[in-house]
Amino acid sequence: MAKEGLFNVRASDGGELRLSRASVGRFSLYLRHLEGVLGEGAAKVSSGQLGEALGITDAQVRKDLAYLGSLGQPGIGYSTQELIDAIRRLLGIDRCWPVALVGVGNLGRALLGYRGFAQRGFRVVALFDTDPTKIGQVIDELTICNVEQMPAVIAATGAELGVIAVPCAAAQMVADALIRAGIRGLLNFAPVVLRTPAEVRLVSVDLTVQLEQLAFLVHTQAPESPDTR
Amino acid sequence: MAKEGLFNVRASDGGELRLSRASVGRFSLYLRHLEGVLGEGAAKVSSGQLGEALGITDAQVRKDLAYLGSLGQPGIGYSTQELIDAIRRLLGIDRCWPVALVGVGNLGRALLGYRGFAQRGFRVVALFDTDPTKIGQVIDELTICNVEQMPAVIAATGAELGVIAVPCAAAQMVADALIRAGIRGLLNFAPVVLRTPAEVRLVSVDLTVQLEQLAFLVHTQAPESPDTR
Repeated sequence: MAKEGLFNVRASDGGELRLSRASVGRFSLYLRHLEGVLGEGAAKVSSGQLGEALGITDAQVRKDLAYLGSLGQPGIGYSTQELIDAIRRLLGIDRCWPVALVGVGNLGRALLGYRGFAQRGFRVVALFDTDPTKIGQVIDELTICNVEQMPAVIAATGAELGVIAVPCAAAQMVADALIRAGIRGLLNFAPVVLRTPAEVRLVSVDLTVQLEQLAFLVHTQAPESPDTR
Repeated sequence: MAKEGLFNVRASDGGELRLSRASVGRFSLYLRHLEGVLGEGAAKVSSGQLGEALGITDAQVRKDLAYLGSLGQPGIGYSTQELIDAIRRLLGIDRCWPVALVGVGNLGRALLGYRGFAQRGFRVVALFDTDPTKIGQVIDELTICNVEQMPAVIAATGAELGVIAVPCAAAQMVADALIRAGIRGLLNFAPVVLRTPAEVRLVSVDLTVQLEQLAFLVHTQAPESPDTR
């Protein structure tokens, strides 16, 4: 089976760490849970509580959190706020990421309304569509622009990430236009394989693949370790 | 790092295989590409062509396809149709999966219109919402029902998988109701951790996690093996 993608990140002691994509995903989940816990007023949290909430073993939680440096105290636990800050630094989301959204259909509107994005520092600063009837419409104080305006609008708004929520047939053209306009990270929802230069980061969300994985799990009734859910 | 989830599946020779979630995901991608290739009239395909199209090494493709049994011929390649049939059998999608969709907001409507679902045998047979103003509306010849009607409607339609596209606050209640109505596989889009009994299969799609992974990739500019994209 494929070797999982590994990423070099800067450790808290200035050295280098290698993280798997699965562990990057888990840090996102820890972060979500910790922010909820902090909102409820809990200044401390234990690895056992985190594991319980996320369906991950205590040992795995402690192993993951050790990547953040020496934060926990035996018998006392972790400072919720310290963990949140350390994970946000690790993931590079201790700052705002301006996002350009291309495709303002049902999916695009769902993404615009997705409360998680703004909460986590992802701010949609530019809207584009390929449908001429939508150009010029205003949603959430943003005017929908056409793809020809992309270089100017992206330069003006400082968008760094591009979200592609257009039909398959338009997805490659939109990706090419975003890259020409200077975008270096693409989140693609179109169920099509995009070709991108090596320096561009691409994350694809294929909703049919998720449904097929679910069908496969129900089909096989395969036991699965909880930390992959 | 977490051990990747492994699944036992029945091999073509009647034995048992263990597949990682990553490889199950790749089989979905092979399938998508092969169906496109077949639509263009190509009766044969090589591992090199598949790898090229999906950004995976030739060796990885051959290793994956070996799980399907002895299908390829050296110098000739694989029969496109045979590969498609074998992958569909492996994944348990050589049949139709009836789906209940809960939450008919922007995301639910986007999922209803997601052309991949119907093409791949996932047919939405029941719609539910928690918003009283939507109950009784008809979309795609399906009437939106309330959650109280779930047991009766799910029994009548034979829905086997449930897709949760409601706001966070309603997601656990909807999951509980689907499970009580007999659903054994859930695809959850609400950015919240759901608690489900062990016999229920759960796949969660957290769109913020995907965006955070992208930000992390752009932040670190980490090199990544293409087969994880």
